Order: sequence, then structure tokens, then C-alpha cells
Amino acid sequence: MTAPLKSIEGTGDIAAAMADIGRQARAAARALALSPAAQKDRALDLMAAAVRAQKSAILAANAEDLAETRAAGASSALIDRLALNEDRVEAIAAGIETVRGLPDPVGKITESWTRPNGMTIERVRVPLGVIGIIYESRPNVTADAGALCLKSGNAAILRGGSDSTRSSRAIHAALTEGLREAGLPEATIQLVPTRDRAAVGQMLGGLDGNIDVIVPRGGKSLVARVQAEARVPVFAHLEGVVHIFIDKAAALDMAKTIVLNAKMRRTGVCGAVETLLVDRAVAPTHLKPLIAMLLDAGCEIRGDKTAQAVDGRVKPAAESDWGTEFLDAILAVKVVDGVDAAIAHIARYGSNHTDAIITDDAAAAEKFLAEVDSAIVLHNASTQFADGGEFGFGAEIGIATGRLHARGPVGAEQLTTFKYRIRGNGQIRP
Amino acid sequence: MTAPLKSIEGTGDIAAAMADIGRQARAAARALALSPAAQKDRALDLMAAAVRAQKSAILAANAEDLAETRAAGASSALIDRLALNEDRVEAIAAGIETVRGLPDPVGKITESWTRPNGMTIERVRVPLGVIGIIYESRPNVTADAGALCLKSGNAAILRGGSDSTRSSRAIHAALTEGLREAGLPEATIQLVPTRDRAAVGQMLGGLDGNIDVIVPRGGKSLVARVQAEARVPVFAHLEGVVHIFIDKAAALDMAKTIVLNAKMRRTGVCGAVETLLVDRAVAPTHLKPLIAMLLDAGCEIRGDKTAQAVDGRVKPAAESDWGTEFLDAILAVKVVDGVDAAIAHIARYGSNHTDAIITDDAAAAEKFLAEVDSAIVLHNASTQFADGGEFGFGAEIGIATGRLHARGPVGAEQLTTFKYRIRGNGQIRP
Repeated sequence: MTAPLKSIEGTGDIAAAMADIGRQARAAARALALSPAAQKDRALDLMAAAVRAQKSAILAANAEDLAETRAAGASSALIDRLALNEDRVEAIAAGIETVRGLPDPVGKITESWTRPNGMTIERVRVPLGVIGIIYESRPNVTADAGALCLKSGNAAILRGGSDSTRSSRAIHAALTEGLREAGLPEATIQLVPTRDRAAVGQMLGGLDGNIDVIVPRGGKSLVARVQAEARVPVFAHLEGVVHIFIDKAAALDMAKTIVLNAKMRRTGVCGAVETLLVDRAVAPTHLKPLIAMLLDAGCEIRGDKTAQAVDGRVKPAAESDWGTEFLDAILAVKVVDGVDAAIAHIARYGSNHTDAIITDDAAAAEKFLAEVDSAIVLHNASTQFADGGEFGFGAEIGIATGRLHARGPVGAEQLTTFKYRIRGNGQIRP
Repeated sequence: MTAPLKSIEGTGDIAAAMADIGRQARAAARALALSPAAQKDRALDLMAAAVRAQKSAILAANAEDLAETRAAGASSALIDRLALNEDRVEAIAAGIETVRGLPDPVGKITESWTRPNGMTIERVRVPLGVIGIIYESRPNVTADAGALCLKSGNAAILRGGSDSTRSSRAIHAALTEGLREAGLPEATIQLVPTRDRAAVGQMLGGLDGNIDVIVPRGGKSLVARVQAEARVPVFAHLEGVVHIFIDKAAALDMAKTIVLNAKMRRTGVCGAVETLLVDRAVAPTHLKPLIAMLLDAGCEIRGDKTAQAVDGRVKPAAESDWGTEFLDAILAVKVVDGVDAAIAHIARYGSNHTDAIITDDAAAAEKFLAEVDSAIVLHNASTQFADGGEFGFGAEIGIATGRLHARGPVGAEQLTTFKYRIRGNGQIRP
């Protein structure tokens, strides 16, 4: 049995409580920015150990969350996102250790040069400061996000979903123990102690300048609210309307392999393809086998007239299907007049997330990679590689489609900024 | 005589007119992002030539602005900022040529690596998109900002001050001619055709997502308004409360040379020092000669009790003098207990802009460079090097003290973002 939920509900002053959380986070961030890599890594080791040691308490807290959520009649999908078991708790601990194993991005000199007057200028990575993370029912985000912020020298203010309050609190208790034993401020990773949605509004306002960036983790409605209301920068993607274009110079075998993987490996991830564009020049040879393969694999196809003509199982696509993130075994299919038309379709309906071309024509590939304005563009590879782990970042806090600061997978490096260090020996400006 | 001021005043629909400007800018940005360096450079050459060719028209327009501004009883400082002459017009043209000579930041591959599965991933620079620039009376900003945005592949929406409307329009006409002759969209650089302040509000709202970042150029009240009201990211600094700390291991000669330059070379720039902190350990030897030198150079000193005691001309510092950007021949002087106290003072009163330490002690220097959380930190060099030109950036659109994306001098490179290009040969995700 976990302790009763301590909370600031009913105190009548959530704004004051949240402002205090912001001030504590800023103070922790200042200390953490100067913390050596070894101390941060020791804290991460201790956090992983504490998660394992407190497995029973975490599972007990999760059982309470599950009971309450089931009683409220939640969907099985929500229950699955919320549910922990021994394997999932172990995965949380192992995830912290993965982050611990990443190189420390802080202090890395990314550029240095010497001026004609002899001064040297260095550009060096420093932490961003305080990251606010607003998430929904997955309790593991508490540990994932907390660990990645710590690794990159940032303080974290975590606001989890109401469904997973007790689970997140139990995981957070383990993180706090690790921080304390490593001699780092406990306020390095704070969990907002209220289910009141007013706390989210306070975070979106930036807590008097004490939140530098907000990362929403969850469904489209959460991200949309954060993007619409936040007064501080947001690293996020609203949706991943991912396209694959089968160019006239695409090998059919490769096209089939990649499209099947990009759609069906996991249909609920943001890198899953949602619209297939096929060059009219190869529609006679490529369209039917691609569509048949997908239908046979259990994928619903919503096609334009040409696609409907090749297989009776193809449903007609509505205008709204272009630009829809199905997050399910559904694919919109359209025949287009070459690479330019594909690029124009993506510019109109895409979400600047991830798009791919399949072709053996290097010029067509380079044109597509240059002109499609998405965070990630691929040639002859599956769009499901849109993932920080697959990039080699080790861990990510999400994928961003904005243009400022972070774009694509947001890993430890993207949670840093930089400053300039100049060393002279008495130089003055003429 | 310039043409009468065309305007959207009184049309009753500034919002619609500004939205149209935003859409045109976005379309121009899409074209410009794919424009080769040679075409952009040719446009810059043609713009410089057009500025020179239209010198008479620019000076005539400026004379009208000056007459109106003088009649309204403006200060001599404002008149000086607004006034153009043959030399200043030539400097505008030469400035465009300087930007033309910079390397094109677009298309530069900043990182590339190969994954174990053989995929290559490249991180490549691409333009940010549309930059909004809101400025005051200096008409040269029209050309400086327009040229830098063009070089970095961005469309610009310029909103100059009311005082300089005709001057900015005349310069803008020259820029437009260069764009047209080079075959680039005229909407690459748009000048907002109204003095109505509602247009600024529209820009701060982001023009339906068609402004990616806003850069205010002007005084503190302009920057404060932009920072408070903008719904899009802002690259700016509100003020430069710049400190120099004279460590106990500072050579007096170097300290004198650097402090005199940092304060008196130009007192109105953001890198001018505003507060001098002197280590108590060297106050007996260093304080008096430093203060006497500055007083003799015509600088007012507002000092703490120790500083007041060394020279009768020192005025007492008020609490409000710490943290004030005087932008004048005035310096606040305080004795502190070592480097830690100096760092603490800067954390409390500084503006995260530029701060310097003078010392021969490498450990003290490294501590200061690591712990002072400013965009630019210097060791044994003048703070007046806080300038994009002095960094070797060739040109800058301003200095940013925010933590996201751009920090320090904002040059062509900081006006870009990036995307990931992935090349495979059929890879799928397991």
C-alpha cells in the first residue's frame, strides 16, 4: 500500500505552489549545469538500482492506478499503456542505464577558431536549463524523461497523467533516492503533486521564466493544447503524416519490402507510413502487387480511382484521407505524375515529420531529399527508422517538427544550448 | 521627390493585408530554400548596385523623413540615427557586398554518420523560413537585415520605424530591383506598407504560422514589447548589463587597457561594460588607478563605499545601479570577495549577455568561464568584442540572450535550421 496521495489540491493556491516548483527547478538547474559527468552518471546508476529495489512498491502503486482507471471504465488501450509488470519495471531501470551510457553532451566544444588578433573563440555545449514534460498515462515517461534531462544537465518538471499518478509518484520516489544518494539536488527532477489541470496551465505559462522549453508526450489533443497555449518554446510533433513515394525508377522488390515494414511493423508509431504515392509511369507494374501485398497482410487500402481499379478490395479514398494520420492498419494510396507531383502532394498534405522516396535514380532521390521540407527525409529505407534510438542517439524524449533548435528526434544533445568562451591576452577592440 | 506613400492605412483591414504578406513570404521562402548560392549572390550584387544607382532617390526620401521628424521636435540622437548621407548610403551598399561574400550556410553538412545497418545519416543546414524584423529609426537595417536573410535562404518581412518610412521604402525599392533582376521572388524581402502599429501586433501573432522567428532591432521598450507579446520565437537581448571582474591575479596594466576600451571605446553599444567588480585582495593596488584612469577619461563612477574612499570624485552607487545598462560614460564599481562573489553578483544582476574576467590565474579564469551563464564569456579581452563582425561572422542581425536556437551574435548560420537526410539500400526496421 502506498502512502496516501499528498497533494496541493484544495490549498487554493496552485499558482504559488507551481511558482515555487519553478524556482526550485531553476536553482537545481544552476547546480546541475556544473555537475561533472561522473556525478550525473552515478545518480543514474543509483536511480536504476532504486527502481529495481522498489519494484514491489511501484507495482503496488500501479495496481491502485489500474483499479481506479478500470473502475472508471477506461479502454483496454489506455489500460495497456498504464499497466506495469515485472518486465516493464525492469525495462524502466534498463532504460535509465542506457541513458547513463550515453556520452555527456555538456562541455563538448563543437567549434573553435582563432581570430586574426590572436583571441580564440570556442562554442561549447551547456544545458538548456529547465525542461517541462507534460505526459499522459505511460508511467515509464517519468523515468525516461527524468533520466534524459539529468544526463543533459537539465532540471525536469514532470506532469504526468491523472490515471498514472500513483505509479509516477512511486517511480519518482526511486529517482529522488538516486539523486539524493549522489549528492545532487532532489529538485533536479520534480513531479507536480496535483492532478489539477490548472497546474498544466501554469507550466504552459512558463512559471515566471523558470521553464525554458516544454515537451508534451502523448496524443494529438495534448500536443495541440500545448502548442496552442504555451508561452515558452515547445519541442513536439502534432502528427506524423508520413509518405512514401514509389518513383518510376523504383525496384519493385525493394518497394514491397520497405512499404510493408513502414506500414505494418507497428502501425501506431509516428514513423508509420500513412500515404503511399506511386509514380504513374510504374503504376501498371508496381501498383497491383504493392496493394495486394498490403491487403493480404491485413491492411485496409483507401485508394484513388487508379488504385481502386487494380483490386476490388480497395476502398475509395476521401479527400480527408490525404493528410490523415491513421495510426492503424490503413493506408491511403494515390497515383501521381512523377517526383514533382509527389513533392507537391507532400507539401500540401504532409506534417513535416518523415517522408521517403524509393528509387534507383540518384537524381530523383537527391531532388526529393532536397525539396521535401520534413525533419527526416529518406531514400530507400523504411520510415519507421524515425526514432532517436535508430539514429544512434541512445534515447529520445520525442520527435520535433518545429524549425527552431530541435528538429527530428530530440536526444540528449538537443536538450543543450551553447555559449561562447573567448580567451585573449589583453586584446582590445580598435 | 519620392512617390506618395502607398499604404494600407484606412483600408480597414490590416489583418487581411498582413496575412497576405505572410502567405507571400512563405511562398517566396519555399522557392528561396532551393535557390543556388550563385543566384542569391547575384541578387545581392544587384541589390548593392541598385542602392548605389538609386542614391539620389534614397537621400531625397531620407530628407523628407528628416524634415517631418525635425518638425515633430525629435531629439538630435534620433535625427542622427535616421539621417543618411552619401557615405552612409555607400556603407549600406558595401554592407550588402560583405554579406554576399560570406559562405552560404545552406546545404552545409554539419554531421554525418553510418549506422550498423549501412544507412548513412546526414544533418544538413536548411533555411529557417520566414524571419520578421521589427526595427526603429535606422533605415540601414532595411538593407542589412534583408541581405542577411536572403543569404541564409530566408524570406524577410521588415517593419521599420515610422520616422524612417520613406527612407526604408526607397532602400527597399533597390533591394526589390536586385531580386527581380536575379530572378528571385520579389516577396523574398517585403516591407510592411503601413505605419499602423496594428501591423506589429499581427507580426507578433505570427501571421497564421507564416513567421518562424522575430528579430527586434531597437531600444529596450521595443524589445520588451516584442518579448512580452510575440507568439513566435524571438532572437533578441533586452539589455547588455556587462560586467568585468578584476581578479586578485589580474595584471594592472592589462586591466586598465581592457577596462578603458570596454567602457569608453563606444559607450552606447551592448558590449560596453556597465559594472566593474574588483577583488578585495587587489583593491589596495588596483582600485585607485583604475578609477582615476576612468574619471580622467570623462567617465562617471558610481562606487560602493570602498570605491568612494579612493577618489573624491566617485559618486555613491545606489542599489539600482547594479544591473543598470547605462549606455553612457557611467560605470558602477564594486569590491567583491573573490571570484565566487563576482559570479554570484553577475548571476543576480547580469543579463546573460557578455561578461569578462581579467586574471593571470588559469584556474580562476576557467571557473569564471564555466560558471557565468552568459552567451559570451571572455578571459583577458575587451567585452566590446561582443559583435558578430568581431566573431568573424561577417554580419549579424543582433545578439541573442535567449537559450533556444540562437545565442550570442546572430549571423547567417544562426538563421538556418537543419534536417536529416538518410540514404539506404533497402533497410527495414527489425
